[in-house]
This record gives sequence, C-alpha cells and structure tokens, in this order.
Amino acid sequence: MTRQLMEEKVFKDPVHKYIYVQDETIWNLINTKEFQRLRRVRQLGTSFMTFHGAEHSRFSHSLGVYEVARRIISQFERNGYADWPKEERLLCLCSALLHDIGHGPFSHSVESVFGTDHEEWTCKLVLGDTEVNRVLTEADPELPKKVSDVICKSYGKEIVVGLISSQLDADRMDYLLRDAYYTGVHYGTFDLERILRVIRPHKGHIVVKESGMHAVEDYLMSRYQMYWQVYFHPVTRSSEIILRKVFERAKRLYEDKHEYQFLMGPLVGLLENKMTTEDYLMLDESYVQMTIMQWSKEKDGILSDLCSRFLNRRLFKYAAVDEIDGMLESELRQGMRACGIDPDYYLEIDYLTELPYDVYRAGNEEESLPIWLLDGKHELVEISRKSDIIRSIGGIHGGKHHIYFPAELLSHAEQCLSPALLRTLGLDG
Amino acid sequence: MTRQLMEEKVFKDPVHKYIYVQDETIWNLINTKEFQRLRRVRQLGTSFMTFHGAEHSRFSHSLGVYEVARRIISQFERNGYADWPKEERLLCLCSALLHDIGHGPFSHSVESVFGTDHEEWTCKLVLGDTEVNRVLTEADPELPKKVSDVICKSYGKEIVVGLISSQLDADRMDYLLRDAYYTGVHYGTFDLERILRVIRPHKGHIVVKESGMHAVEDYLMSRYQMYWQVYFHPVTRSSEIILRKVFERAKRLYEDKHEYQFLMGPLVGLLENKMTTEDYLMLDESYVQMTIMQWSKEKDGILSDLCSRFLNRRLFKYAAVDEIDGMLESELRQGMRACGIDPDYYLEIDYLTELPYDVYRAGNEEESLPIWLLDGKHELVEISRKSDIIRSIGGIHGGKHHIYFPAELLSHAEQCLSPALLRTLGLDG
Amino acid sequence: MTRQLMEEKVFKDPVHKYIYVQDETIWNLINTKEFQRLRRVRQLGTSFMTFHGAEHSRFSHSLGVYEVARRIISQFERNGYADWPKEERLLCLCSALLHDIGHGPFSHSVESVFGTDHEEWTCKLVLGDTEVNRVLTEADPELPKKVSDVICKSYGKEIVVGLISSQLDADRMDYLLRDAYYTGVHYGTFDLERILRVIRPHKGHIVVKESGMHAVEDYLMSRYQMYWQVYFHPVTRSSEIILRKVFERAKRLYEDKHEYQFLMGPLVGLLENKMTTEDYLMLDESYVQMTIMQWSKEKDGILSDLCSRFLNRRLFKYAAVDEIDGMLESELRQGMRACGIDPDYYLEIDYLTELPYDVYRAGNEEESLPIWLLDGKHELVEISRKSDIIRSIGGIHGGKHHIYFPAELLSHAEQCLSPALLRTLGLDG
Amino acid sequence: MTRQLMEEKVFKDPVHKYIYVQDETIWNLINTKEFQRLRRVRQLGTSFMTFHGAEHSRFSHSLGVYEVARRIISQFERNGYADWPKEERLLCLCSALLHDIGHGPFSHSVESVFGTDHEEWTCKLVLGDTEVNRVLTEADPELPKKVSDVICKSYGKEIVVGLISSQLDADRMDYLLRDAYYTGVHYGTFDLERILRVIRPHKGHIVVKESGMHAVEDYLMSRYQMYWQVYFHPVTRSSEIILRKVFERAKRLYEDKHEYQFLMGPLVGLLENKMTTEDYLMLDESYVQMTIMQWSKEKDGILSDLCSRFLNRRLFKYAAVDEIDGMLESELRQGMRACGIDPDYYLEIDYLTELPYDVYRAGNEEESLPIWLLDGKHELVEISRKSDIIRSIGGIHGGKHHIYFPAELLSHAEQCLSPALLRTLGLDG
Repeated sequence: MTRQLMEEKVFKDPVHKYIYVQDETIWNLINTKEFQRLRRVRQLGTSFMTFHGAEHSRFSHSLGVYEVARRIISQFERNGYADWPKEERLLCLCSALLHDIGHGPFSHSVESVFGTDHEEWTCKLVLGDTEVNRVLTEADPELPKKVSDVICKSYGKEIVVGLISSQLDADRMDYLLRDAYYTGVHYGTFDLERILRVIRPHKGHIVVKESGMHAVEDYLMSRYQMYWQVYFHPVTRSSEIILRKVFERAKRLYEDKHEYQFLMGPLVGLLENKMTTEDYLMLDESYVQMTIMQWSKEKDGILSDLCSRFLNRRLFKYAAVDEIDGMLESELRQGMRACGIDPDYYLEIDYLTELPYDVYRAGNEEESLPIWLLDGKHELVEISRKSDIIRSIGGIHGGKHHIYFPAELLSHAEQCLSPALLRTLGLDG
Repeated sequence: MTRQLMEEKVFKDPVHKYIYVQDETIWNLINTKEFQRLRRVRQLGTSFMTFHGAEHSRFSHSLGVYEVARRIISQFERNGYADWPKEERLLCLCSALLHDIGHGPFSHSVESVFGTDHEEWTCKLVLGDTEVNRVLTEADPELPKKVSDVICKSYGKEIVVGLISSQLDADRMDYLLRDAYYTGVHYGTFDLERILRVIRPHKGHIVVKESGMHAVEDYLMSRYQMYWQVYFHPVTRSSEIILRKVFERAKRLYEDKHEYQFLMGPLVGLLENKMTTEDYLMLDESYVQMTIMQWSKEKDGILSDLCSRFLNRRLFKYAAVDEIDGMLESELRQGMRACGIDPDYYLEIDYLTELPYDVYRAGNEEESLPIWLLDGKHELVEISRKSDIIRSIGGIHGGKHHIYFPAELLSHAEQCLSPALLRTLGLDG
Repeated sequence: MTRQLMEEKVFKDPVHKYIYVQDETIWNLINTKEFQRLRRVRQLGTSFMTFHGAEHSRFSHSLGVYEVARRIISQFERNGYADWPKEERLLCLCSALLHDIGHGPFSHSVESVFGTDHEEWTCKLVLGDTEVNRVLTEADPELPKKVSDVICKSYGKEIVVGLISSQLDADRMDYLLRDAYYTGVHYGTFDLERILRVIRPHKGHIVVKESGMHAVEDYLMSRYQMYWQVYFHPVTRSSEIILRKVFERAKRLYEDKHEYQFLMGPLVGLLENKMTTEDYLMLDESYVQMTIMQWSKEKDGILSDLCSRFLNRRLFKYAAVDEIDGMLESELRQGMRACGIDPDYYLEIDYLTELPYDVYRAGNEEESLPIWLLDGKHELVEISRKSDIIRSIGGIHGGKHHIYFPAELLSHAEQCLSPALLRTLGLDG
Repeated sequence: MTRQLMEEKVFKDPVHKYIYVQDETIWNLINTKEFQRLRRVRQLGTSFMTFHGAEHSRFSHSLGVYEVARRIISQFERNGYADWPKEERLLCLCSALLHDIGHGPFSHSVESVFGTDHEEWTCKLVLGDTEVNRVLTEADPELPKKVSDVICKSYGKEIVVGLISSQLDADRMDYLLRDAYYTGVHYGTFDLERILRVIRPHKGHIVVKESGMHAVEDYLMSRYQMYWQVYFHPVTRSSEIILRKVFERAKRLYEDKHEYQFLMGPLVGLLENKMTTEDYLMLDESYVQMTIMQWSKEKDGILSDLCSRFLNRRLFKYAAVDEIDGMLESELRQGMRACGIDPDYYLEIDYLTELPYDVYRAGNEEESLPIWLLDGKHELVEISRKSDIIRSIGGIHGGKHHIYFPAELLSHAEQCLSPALLRTLGLDG
C-alpha cells in the first residue's frame, strides 16, 4: 500500500523546474543511503573533462527519470485512457527512480576491465539486505521482486517495462535533456511536453499517434546530435581510455603481487573481482578519485604516469583516420615498443563500428523496444518504416576511426615510426 | 563612403538580444518611410490565425537578417580570412537589411492572384525615386544598382549573393529563429553561434568546415520541422486560401463592373493590375484588413461571406487524404454545385507535391546556392553527398493531401454528395 | 451549465508553452467575433516603435490571463483548499478571458481625448446584443451580469474579483511575462510557478504564505523594472503623445467644420463622441492606422504633419530635466509661438508625478486589492509592512521630467528661445 | 610578453555559451595541475544537499570569471575608452582566472575550524614553487607578484582590483548567474549584457552611467534573492554545520590522542594546523568525502554518527524563531545534556545578525569597493544615495533565527526539555 504524503514534497530541478513527490514510498526511497550514494557518482563519467559543466550526478538524473515517468502516468490518468493499467503506477515510479542504483564510479571504464554489470548490481541492491529493499517491502512485499523484474526487462507487461526502457523511455528523455543542459549543448534538447502529448497506451504498448511522428523525429535527432557531439567526443573517449588503462595496469600489478602503498577495503574486492555489497556501496567516485591521486605516487612508472595524466588532464592526443586495418595497428605497436613505450597502456584505436552507438534502429528489437506509430487505420507501424529521417539516423555517418596515443612521448620518434605512420598520427610537422 | 555613427546604436531584440548599428547609412535606411512601412506587414501572413503569437512584422525580421549578416562578416573580419572581400561589407549589410522591402501585405495570397512579385518591387524601390534610394546614393552612387543586383542574385560575386540568398543564408537563419520564437515552437531553433563558428569564406564561396556537418544537419532539421509544423499547417493554409478567394472574387467582380461601396486609391490599382509606387507603399496590411472589414458588408454574397470568414476566423475545415485524383475533385465540384455552393470560391485542394517546400535539396542549384562542405583534403563537396540525414530531409514524408471546404454549409449535403465523398470529407457522422 | 469539450483543445503559446481549453463555453467565447477582434488591437499600443518586437495583440494576452487563472484555480482544486469556492470556476475563467474585450485601438491616446473607457465598453459588450453575451447566457442566464460585475469589481466575493484584478492578479502576471517576452526585456520576468506555489485562498482572500514573501518581492521588482524600462520609455511616450495630438487636432477640425477628404463610419461616431456598439467593434487598429495614412494627406498642415510623423516614426525628441515649473512651460510655449509653431500640438511635458505609475503601494487599497501575507500566527499582514523592498519600490526613484518637442523645427530657434531654454532642450550646440 | 594562440580555443559553457581563450598564458594556466585541481572542489560546498543540481565546481566558475572579465575588457577596448589602462589586460585576465585557486574543500566549514584562509593560499600558490607560478613568470617575471597583489587587493590601481573584487565585479557576476543556472533558481539571473553596456572606466574607477541605475538595481536584487533563497537556505546551513562539527570533533579527538583507524597524509597536516603546499593540493573534496566515509566507521560514537549523517543526508532539523537570547541557548544546552546529548556537537544556533550577508551596503567600503554612478553632471555618486531600492536591500528583512538539532534524538525528550522549549523546537506534537 502506498500512502500519500501529508504535504507534497518538491525538489527544485533545473531541467524540469520542479520534481514532485506525493508518495511516502518514493520519499523514503530517496532518503535511503543507497540512493543518496548516487550523489557521488557522476552521470557522464569523464565527460566533464571535455564539457566542464557536465559535473552532474546520477542522483539528479534518477530524480529526473522518476519525474518524467510521473508526468507520463499523470497524463495517462488525466485522459482516462482505458489501456493504461492504473494499478502499476507505484511500480513504475519506483522502477524509474531506482533503475540506476547499481551504477558504480566511471562505469564505462570500470565495467569493461572487471566485468561488473550495473544492472545486475541494481537488482542485487533491490533484492538484497538494503534500506531500499526494506522501504519497498514495507509498501508491498512483492514490490522488490517486481521492481527488479521491470529493471531487468523480464516483467510480464511490456507497457511497464517500456516506460523505463525502450526507445522512447523516461530514462532517455531525462538524460538527453539533462546532459544537454549541463554540457550547454542546447541543440540536444527536444520538446518534452510535445512528446507527452503524442504518446498513449494502446493494447499493451506505449504508442505514438500518427500526427506525432515529427515530434519523435525531433527527439531522435537530438539523440543523434548528443551521441556525435557529446557522448563520443574524442576528448571524452581519451579520458575514458586512460582510466581503463589505469585499472588494467592496477589489475595486472595486483596479479603480479605488486606491493601497493595504497590499497584499502573495496579496492581489494575490486581487484580480486569479488566485491561484497558493502564494498560496492563504498566504492563511489570520491574513492576512485582519491585512489588515483594516491596511485599517482606508486612506484610502478606506468601506473603512476597514467594516474597523474588522469588527475591533471594530460590526456592522449588523437588522430582521425578514414580507413584503418590490422596491419597499421601492428606496425604502430611495434614502433612504439621500439621507442620504449608499452602499447598495451599507451595506444588505443577506436573503430567506428565498435562505438556503443545507441541510436534508434528498427532492427534492434531484441535489445530495446521499438517505437510504434498508431496510424490512421488504427494499426501499429514501426516508426522507421514511415520516416526516411529516422531510417537515415540509424547508420554511421561519415565518421572516422580514432587513434589515441601520448603525442608528447612520440615527438622525437623518427627512428621508431615510419614517415607514413608519423603522417597518420599528425606528427610529421 | 560610409561614415561610422558617433555612438553605436542598439535595438533590443528578443531573438538576437541586441541589434547593433554602427554605420550611418544603415541607420538612415532604417529611418526611411519605405523601411518603416515594413512594420505594417506581418512576417508570417495569416499564420497568426494558427499560432496566435506569430504577429511579428517584416520590420523585425529585416533587422534580424541585417544583424545575422553583420555577425557573420564581423566573424570573418576578426579571423582575418583572406578569402573574404572586405570592401563588400556595406553592400552586404544594406542588401541584408533591404532584401524584403518590396513585400506587400499577405504576399502569399495576393501575389498568386495579381501576379505581383515582391522581389521585383524590392528592386523598383531600391532603384526608384525613394528615400531608400537617396540614402544609398549618398553613400555611393553605385550602391543602389549593386544592392538591387545582390537581391536579384545577378551580382558578380557569389560570396556576396550567398550571404543573402543561399541554402544557409542570413535570411533563413533569422526567420527560422524568429518564427520559432514568436510561434513558441521551440523545436524550430538551432544554435546560431555554432553555425557562425563552422562557416568561412573559401575561394569565392561560403563553405562549412567538415567538422561542422552535424551543425548544418541540425539547422536543416529545424527548417524541416518549421515547414511541416508551422509553414504548412493546414489552419494557416485554410486562412491563406480564404484570403486568396477574397481577392479572386474581388477581381472578378471588378471585371464584371460590380459597384463597390468601398474602393479607394491603391485598391483600384491592385484590381487593375497597374499599381504605382505610391499605391504600392500605401497598400499595407492595415489597408487590406480594413478593406476586408468594409467588404464584409458588400452586397455580393460570396465576397461578403468570404471577408467575414477571414475577419472572424470562421475558416474552411480540411480533410486529409492519402490519395487523390482528378476524378474525386470533379465529383466534389459537381456535388457542391448541386448543393448551390460555388466550388470556385469554396473548394480547394492542396496537392502535397505542389507545396512550396523549400527544404534543402542538392539538386536545386539553379534556384538557390547549395551548401558546400570543405573536406579533410580541402576539396568542396555538396553536403548532401556526405550526410544521409540531409538527403532524407529532401523528400516528402508520409504527408497527406488536404481538401478545404466550408463544413457547416455541407452538414446536410446527403442529397448532393455521395456517401463515399461524405466519408472522405469526414462528414459521415 | 458548462459542458466539457469532447477533447481538450490546445493553443501553442510562447509564454505559457500551451494554453488548455476544457470547457465548451470558453471555446465558444474565443470564437466570437468580439473576441477575435482583439487580434486587431495591440497589447502595448505604440511601444513597438521603441521595442520592435512588441507587436503582440490583446488576443494573445487575453488567452494568457485565462491560462494563468486556470492554473491558479487548478492548483487550488488539486490541493483541495476548503476556502476556495469551487462553484465560481467558470465565472472566473470567463471573466479572465473577457476582461479586456472592450479595449479599443491605442487606448492610452484615444481614451484621453474622447473620454471613452474600455472597462465600460467591456461591460457593454458583455451585457449587450453580442455573440459573447449569447454564449455566456447559454451557459447560465446570470453569467453575463456576473462577469460584468467581476470585471467592474462590484461582484460580492473579493476572492473572485481579486483573481482578475488585484495587486497579484492573473492580468498582471500574464502581461508582465508576455511584454517581457515580446520586447526581449528578460529582466521583466519572474517565476510564475513559484508564485503559484505560495498563494492560496484564505477566508475570502487570496493570500501569500509567509515563506513566499521573497517570491512576491521578485514579482514586484519585475513590475518596477517593466514600468521604468518599458512602459514609461520616453520614445514610447513620444509616439503616444503624437497620436494624442493627432486626435486632438482631428476633433478640433471636426468641431470647426473642416472638410475631411477621408472620414467614414465609426470615425464620425468617434469625433462626435457617440459611437454605437457596431462602430466600436469596427474601430480596430487597422482602421486607425489606415485613417492616419489617409489623414497624412489632409489639407490641414498640422494634422497631416502629425500623421506623417506617426506613420514614418519621425517622433518628437525629448529633453530630461531634474526640475521644472509652470514658468518654464509658459516661456517655452511663448517661444514656440514666436517661431511659428503651435505649442498645443508640438509641445508636451511629462511631469514625473503624473505618470500612471501602477507599482505596488500599500495605501491604494481603494483602487486595487493589496497583497496579504499570512504570517506564522495565521494572521493577515499587508505585505509592505513586512518588506523594506516592497516599500521602497513604491516611490519615484530619481526619475526626471521630460519635455517633448520637434527638435528639427527648432534647429534655428535662437531668435525665439532664450539661451537658457535652448540649453534645457539640448539645442545649444 | 603574452603570445596569441595560433588558433583561438573555445570551451562550451552552459552559462556564457562559449568561453574564448586567445592568450597562450591563459591556456597554459588552465592546464596547470593547480588549476585542474579546482575540478575537485565544488563551487557551492554542501548546497547540493538542498539543490541537487548544484554540483558544479570552482573550475567552471573560475573559467566564467575569466570570461566575464574578458568581455568587460573587450568592451572597454572596442569603445576605445581613454581611461582604460590597456597594458593591464593580461594581468586582469590572469587574476580573474586564478582568484579562487587557493580554495580548499568545503571552505566554509573547514576554514572556520582550522583557521585556514583561501585567499592566503591563493597567494602562496601564485608566488610559490608551482606550475602556475612558472607559467606566469614565463610571461613576465613580475606577473606572479602583481597577480597576488590584485587578488589581495593591494595592487596600486583600483580599476584593476575592482574588476576582480568590488561590489560589481566579474567574480560576483559569474557566480550569481552560474549558481542560478545550476540550482535552477532562475530568479537569480540578471542581464549580463545590459550591465556590460552601462559600465565604463572613469578616472581610475569602474563606474555606471546614470541611465544604468535600474540595471544595477536588478543585479543587486538578484544577489539579494540568491542570498535568501540559496546561500542561506537552512538545509544547506544544516549540512555545513554538521560538516563543521565533524572537523571540530576530529580535531578534538586528535588533540586527545584518539587512535584513528584512518588518518593519512594531508589529514595529519590539517589536524595539526601545518599543511605543506603539497598537502594542500592533495586535500580536495574527494579526499574529504572519502575520509568522511572512513570515519563513519571510527570507534568514537560522535564522530562516526556525524559522518554518517553527512554521508546519508540525515541532517539536523531546524526551528525558526523570531527572537532568541542567551538564556534560551543555555537552557537548551542544559536540557540536551540531561538527555545525554552533547550540545557542543548537536546544537547550533544561527543568529540572523551573524550571517555572512554579503549584500550591497554603501558603508562597507573598507571591505569591498562600492558602486559609483556617474551622474548627469559627470560627478560620481555612491549608488545607494540615488536608489531607495538599493538602500532597502541592505538590511535584514523579516528573517528569523534558526536552531539546528537532531530532532529524532529528541523525540522523547519530555523529561529533559521544558514544554516551552519543546514548543520552540516544534517537538510538541
């Protein structure tokens, strides 16, 4: 049972103006220590190194996702749509609020090294012995399981899952607006109120009415712009790469029994790949940041150099190339070795095709629910079948591959790198 | 010779914050009666009937185009680009300011009936015996001719013409932002400062540097949205159609020697298709609006009805249809006649393919200069060859044809229209 | 009885994003010809001569006042405040929508010459034989009388009157935001949502809860800024003065039996001070604007000169003076006469103390309801007793008196004006 | 000698749109590790606990101050004001950029406990053996000393000092806009471009031209709103108090030889009040945050409880009282002690008069330069002598004193606190 708060609570939010809380359960969830921890995890990882304004946390974003979900549901209720399952309201709101609760610090870099998975951790935190679990259970003993199912997309009702994760979900709607606001990249915005006006529940799906197609095109175009202008910005990629190399090196040193001067609590769990829930909750971005500062003084030259690069923003430079092949990469690695630089830690190539490009494609239905258009004859059509623009957004557009490397270390590398390689890296003049 | 003003003048502008005037010639042009007249001609004609906020005038827009041109040039000068012909600065600014000076009231509707042409009138006003001409001549006796050449696109330097009329010109940049601001349709905005940062003069063209492609995509997407959401809005089309019918009827009555109760000065010139410059300057939107009010009391039933529809916003309804052919149209016309309604004045079909869709297409180079991308090898590529998105914007997207008609007159039309026609018009229940 | 619309109607509005209409009565009122006429009357009269963006109409503003009232009421209802008389909802909405329906063209200038009064006309239109009256009567035969009472502030319930006209009413809240938006003067904005959160009904009044005092200070400060930056801008005053002089001259000529070349319909009624309702509805700003164009060709030199000044924005210049007395004024008038210029039409002095300064003062309770603060002990305190800032806004702040005159006619006036006078007018060099 | 960069560098900034860097010295300063450290110090300390969006760093703010200074100077140069000492440009820019470089983590709380002073540290970092010092020296060996003098307000030219610290300086202009943007409190904004247009150098001062008085009123009003709505928000104060108590307790325990489980590097320096520069640079907010997490597990009950309160946002509640005296405070302390709660760590009273209220007052000339108005007679007048509003902003307005305490620990405190005290604290039901 959810109880209403005596008095509506309000958070001032720069993106949505105000965030409204009416349910006691939501209020109590926000006040758990697991949710408060999200204040210490940035929403955009290392992007602040490119866009200095992007220092916002997953706490802000999670409140925002909750608010978008609340507005969608409130619109559905106000219009009295019969296809909306009213009894799922609290489940939706809790899932929206908690969907990111398992995110650790700098997930992009950390997860790829240690194989942790934030979604898995979210479910662990929701189902485990946590304050969040207690608050949910108090509202309804089945709620933790249901919330976990919604977040892992195994809940039985597509309409509930789709609100939290689909191609047009509360998560994406908040993060696009929020990331645009904090980076200052205003071309990433779209008209949320207009989207709210064109979606509705329909036979178990959330659909877009036909006249709303242009609104969805606008939203997807914003997403496209954010990916290419912000999320894939090479400077951001460069700092992510350095951070990943830090952890790769640290793991290797740990395996090689390096004697760390600084190695405490959750770090051990991390390096051994067996973190307890308590470890996980301790490992926020302050912890990682402070660790990197300590490690910048470790004796291992590679680890300390990488850490100090991250700390003081002395990033790898990048070269953009139209085409690339395995040959080039192996030549480069050889050349760097000849110069005395370990390419395992000082070279990285971003192949365009391997970027985690989450822009709408009709085909990827297995991963995330597509956007359905309700046409004039009341039939559902997948939206890219109607819109040339949406189809065209799916592809890769004249992008380039990027090679990341420490330019200043290679400034006198004529003896180890061929003129062609130097030219490719832009080091020839 | 242009003189600098003793002190920079400033206009507060909601779109560009401030508009800066430094040249005496510009200041004097703004104060001519021909330019002041633009205050009495709305920028978006009858769009205010759909978007009540869109009541802004061509005066505001013209100042805006001037300001965008000024900022572009000032950016070119600040960066010291060698390919920018500095001596053309005043010519560019004057042309930007004056490019719309020949616009009459509700041009869309009026020009199609009387065959007037605002561009032709602009040149007449620039070259004729006007205050504008005197101010230009004072600065440089050749200036009127040059300004007229730039506006008519016959001036020798593409870079000058392109600043005022091309696919990425000061005119479009201002009107998209301004129309979005006044309608409240904020998805029509794009980031002007970002565009300014990616364009530059290059061998006689204005080009976009390759890394700016996404910025241009964003700008063209805004334009696409404005066309489909604002400029082609069926309610706006409906009011334009009524206005055109008013003038068609008035012209016909005049040819038929109808005894007008109200018919003065420039109206006679208009109906006879021979307006003097003085007539033209008198015929602003107040004049037309007041005329329509007078004519709403003329004895001719059709004229007075159409006028009163326009005045009191009792517009034609519209039906959207996927397919349409000549057969349907002729059936409809016959049916309406059988009901005693003259289809010449009470029926109009908007064929999708005939909409004046001015969205970027690579092919239409004869009409307006394309957008050139300066690629990594310093070669020029027409932008749609690089961008799937820009290519996809060019087509017609799942739009519909629209039939406009006076629904309330046809509410009991079962005896004159077939059930199929009634269904098409949405009058079957 | 008010019926709900089958489907909510929506207007896109640049200030409030969307305006929502749920009641059939409201929808029908908007579609009356009397309400549509407001599209042809500008909200800010001649201000567009100073702020070119300020071309918005009373139609937009009236919709905005309605929307603000709707949001206030909807907030009261959502919170279930017992002190809110629910049965007055439709009355409030209709009054908000219609409160300006009697405004004629350029009211400031016209009313002062002919003694017409827009509030009186509003009531005439609501109570007379009009479409508006019919729509109201259909909803409830008593509604026209009630609406008229609310607008004329004689309705029995202060809380209803206060919503439409008080120091913190829907009218002011809309016009401040709207005028700021269209002029581009963004320092005139305040946070409407925040105001909505701090007001509530309380024992027959609308009151502000104590913690909301700073929000009201911010709102009143915006109002203060708008008055001094926009409403009293000397260029606006100059154009108002010229317009008033036009009408004063026209009236005088009419009394003197001048043979007008252009004088039709409602103009006669206006000049004779006996307009019918039909006359009144015809006399919109197009009519006045077109009349001024015609009159710029009348034989009377003064009338034609004043009209052409207005048309082509050749306004009177102004001189700002710290102190002024009757002596100076009479000297000036004498001097102008000596130069052959009629001071009745070419001289005006704006005494600071006579400006219609409608900024909050505690004392003016007779004119408009004060703002009540509900303090910690649940007692009502007039807000300026708590706030130094609000008290300080009330006075006149270092302002100046302004003298308006045709500078170019006085450029060689050394023989008629004393050196001291020339210095005062800034004509001494 | 400052060198220009080959190509202007640009930072995307949400507040100023873009931040432009043209000088190599500025670019190099930004890339020093001392400046990069500012990314790890929040601009608003614990305010993010109240306004979740306020997570921005001093890095962003410092860039912003630089940009405001750059725009002011560029305006002075563009207008060619003779009273502007052009040779001071680089000094001004460096000082603006570096003025906050000595800020440590959560300065408000830390400085009051340990007596550190960020301004002093700024000068140490500028003058000491740092990267910043080397970059400055390279441009001009005298530059470090000059920058330090400007920041400490001992530099000989008031106009240079005033640009960085005065009542209308680049620092305040940026932080008001920035804090408003990130908190979402948009009533804290003012029109920066308008301020730039009304200030100018005049005989060694930066002055405001008389017609700009309203612009300054608007700016000061924003500041007033920010103080009362944001900076003094009781929830923010509550978290600051807890943090201060943490450090007071930690210091006490250290003096009492408590055996810390976690106590490393710079913390020792802090607790002993003798930090080296290296310590100081290490002690960023990550370090403090991580320390607090560790200390939440220390054996001392008070320290661990306070730390866990801060971490999980279980703050002290507050009661607002109109009047307060020493008697009440001592009664409260006694009562708490009787309940077994140590008032040294669990009670705090914010006396209104002791708030660091930095709103404009004419009198405080010794602390910070006043705002001079250049009147019509070209004389300087201190602005509050002309403006009632500015005078009225100076005082304390109907504010309240606040008592902070752990409400949940006092929920059954009837035996230790008198009914009157319980009522005062709002614990009486």
